Amino acid sequence: MITNQHFGEIPPSYLFSEVAERVRTFSAANPGAEVLRLGIGDVTRPLAPAVIEALHRAVDEQAVASSFQGYGPEAGYAFLREAIAAGEYAAIGVDVAADEIFVGDGSKQDSANVQELFADTARVAVTDPVYPVYVDSNAMAGRLGTFDGERWTKLSYLPCDDMNGYRPALPATPVELIYLCSPNNPTGTVMSRSDLEGWVSYARETGAVILYDVAYRAFITGDDVPRSIYEIPGANEVAIELGSFSKTAGFTGLRCSWAVVPHALQRDGVSLNAMWLRRQSTKFNGTPYIVQRAAEAVYSPEGRAQVQADIDYYLANARLIRETLERAGVAAVGGEHSPYVWFRCPGGMDSWEFFDVLLERAQLVGTPGVGFGPTGAGHFRLSAFNTAEATHEAAQRLARLLPELV
Amino acid sequence: MITNQHFGEIPPSYLFSEVAERVRTFSAANPGAEVLRLGIGDVTRPLAPAVIEALHRAVDEQAVASSFQGYGPEAGYAFLREAIAAGEYAAIGVDVAADEIFVGDGSKQDSANVQELFADTARVAVTDPVYPVYVDSNAMAGRLGTFDGERWTKLSYLPCDDMNGYRPALPATPVELIYLCSPNNPTGTVMSRSDLEGWVSYARETGAVILYDVAYRAFITGDDVPRSIYEIPGANEVAIELGSFSKTAGFTGLRCSWAVVPHALQRDGVSLNAMWLRRQSTKFNGTPYIVQRAAEAVYSPEGRAQVQADIDYYLANARLIRETLERAGVAAVGGEHSPYVWFRCPGGMDSWEFFDVLLERAQLVGTPGVGFGPTGAGHFRLSAFNTAEATHEAAQRLARLLPELV
Repeated sequence: MITNQHFGEIPPSYLFSEVAERVRTFSAANPGAEVLRLGIGDVTRPLAPAVIEALHRAVDEQAVASSFQGYGPEAGYAFLREAIAAGEYAAIGVDVAADEIFVGDGSKQDSANVQELFADTARVAVTDPVYPVYVDSNAMAGRLGTFDGERWTKLSYLPCDDMNGYRPALPATPVELIYLCSPNNPTGTVMSRSDLEGWVSYARETGAVILYDVAYRAFITGDDVPRSIYEIPGANEVAIELGSFSKTAGFTGLRCSWAVVPHALQRDGVSLNAMWLRRQSTKFNGTPYIVQRAAEAVYSPEGRAQVQADIDYYLANARLIRETLERAGVAAVGGEHSPYVWFRCPGGMDSWEFFDVLLERAQLVGTPGVGFGPTGAGHFRLSAFNTAEATHEAAQRLARLLPELV
Repeated sequence: MITNQHFGEIPPSYLFSEVAERVRTFSAANPGAEVLRLGIGDVTRPLAPAVIEALHRAVDEQAVASSFQGYGPEAGYAFLREAIAAGEYAAIGVDVAADEIFVGDGSKQDSANVQELFADTARVAVTDPVYPVYVDSNAMAGRLGTFDGERWTKLSYLPCDDMNGYRPALPATPVELIYLCSPNNPTGTVMSRSDLEGWVSYARETGAVILYDVAYRAFITGDDVPRSIYEIPGANEVAIELGSFSKTAGFTGLRCSWAVVPHALQRDGVSLNAMWLRRQSTKFNGTPYIVQRAAEAVYSPEGRAQVQADIDYYLANARLIRETLERAGVAAVGGEHSPYVWFRCPGGMDSWEFFDVLLERAQLVGTPGVGFGPTGAGHFRLSAFNTAEATHEAAQRLARLLPELV
């Protein structure tokens, strides 16, 4: 066998293609129906004016030999590493050095690649439901055993649902690598300071490394919810943190992210910062210069205000969705510090049953929770990434339909 | 051990940092010296006007909700896949379908990631000297055994030097994965049609897969040298081809590449096209929309002409360097279909000795060949990526110095 056998063990991901197929079938049979989409996790607001201006300026620099930028530093330009250190960390009283920050071209890539730093035998834990990239990237590397139709035999699943208030328990068996995400995709829930203290102390005791994904941190409001794991003392010895401009500033099509790998994070006598630098220098050639200038503009006074207005816009949509569900007697989480709202399907329906009912009777598209892991079964995700007008219309349809289902 | 042990086995790459350090030391000691750099492999000409215009247009699309592009298809937008199929393949009479082309964000990434499709036990062959990414990415994956100070114990090295006319012999022991690069980095040599026919037929007989890197194909002049491995009948059953806009169109800071994975390429009953699609869908989120529009512009009539003018500019530099060497009695290869010129150091010097002589006596910076593998020892690379003026000045200095060394 010359191919990677683990690829064949990964079940095909039918989630979004199956969603698209069912919507296509419905629309073909009902050509007049106005289908509204609350399913996707992609932004819809255009790039902020400050970002657009920075892009045009950087493009013009690339047109002239004296300011042309070829290969940049694989870890990112100093101007952006320093802007992130100041804007994301110093701003919340957390000390992260610029050379602990690595600019990437997307949190998907960073979160998929970070497992390369670990041994083939490292044991992995994920919360359940979960962003599928954490699981699939480890499966491809052969770390998860075999898939039994519902679960990977060597993966520790940490269930999160209303039975435990969406607070995952510590792993029952030892693990070396723990993926946490707050605000969470797909549930929209957040980890409190005391939750995080528990995880940091568990990792300090056991030597596990935490991969902490804060792709949605810009949606956190108020001061009670931690925006970074490094707000917890000692976290810099146990955690890598992954951040993104995708949801913060609408960069899903522009691609820019960052990874924090603290100098204090050492395992087996090796610096993980040095390992990640080596990994990126060997296998990555840097995020485009013009994109890094665009990301820098997010931290200008105008950029901050414009980006915040977009976040507020999505948060208003999310709040409306959650309140509509709750008024109809459907308990929901998320939607406060997150663009996602998550709930048990009403009437005990399974995820795909509810998907069909919602599509056929209200012409609304959401995402079946079972696509995010076994504990997602019987759950559903709605997202705030649509216009305010479409979200209001969707809320009215939900308000009419739900009472018949609950 | 929870970390990837193979990282620790890879020797630190001192090549370019050592070059930079020696130049720094020299310049500090000789503040008046005008040091000219012919070492780097990075372009120096700014982006072509057609590319700049396409970037500005695409940026403006991102400023408006109705034309805003978020997540794109992981394999690339159809407009660019089709432009590459037409401009790079149909144009030379080769049939490659758009869905066999995957848009990436750099050949470095593509060539580092492609090994993920293969088993841990796959045996690897590289030409020597070689682009270090092929070696290091396989070393990180644990496929190469241990490094004995000069060689990896499980890697097949295929030496290329003036003893065999820079034509690598077929591997002496069976291998599953063969990296070939033409026009070659670092030697600047090319594979002829009959060379390629030999490799394709070897792969067809043994089941090996060829990774064929054509990052420098835009430098090929005339019709005798193959621009794609798919010019050889049957190659679509044995080869993946990697192309890049970096050297073709100065995209080193913009980041865009392509990989061709033919549907006919199957191993172990599995389609490698399907595997690569799965790999990219899981671990990559697409090249930025604005960059894909920029790459598309390379195939417009204006884009083609502008980009060709830059290639011609670099080729004139390369020719001058090679002719200068040869006139001084130093046999050189490359510089005809390539921006690189490669030669044995005059007077039997080793690579770093010659580096120091060139720097101290002519204030010229090149790249020591030993940095590219054991057969690179005693060799040297000069590159055409500088201005015509600087290259002329460098040629004059070389012409003065070399007769004293030969």
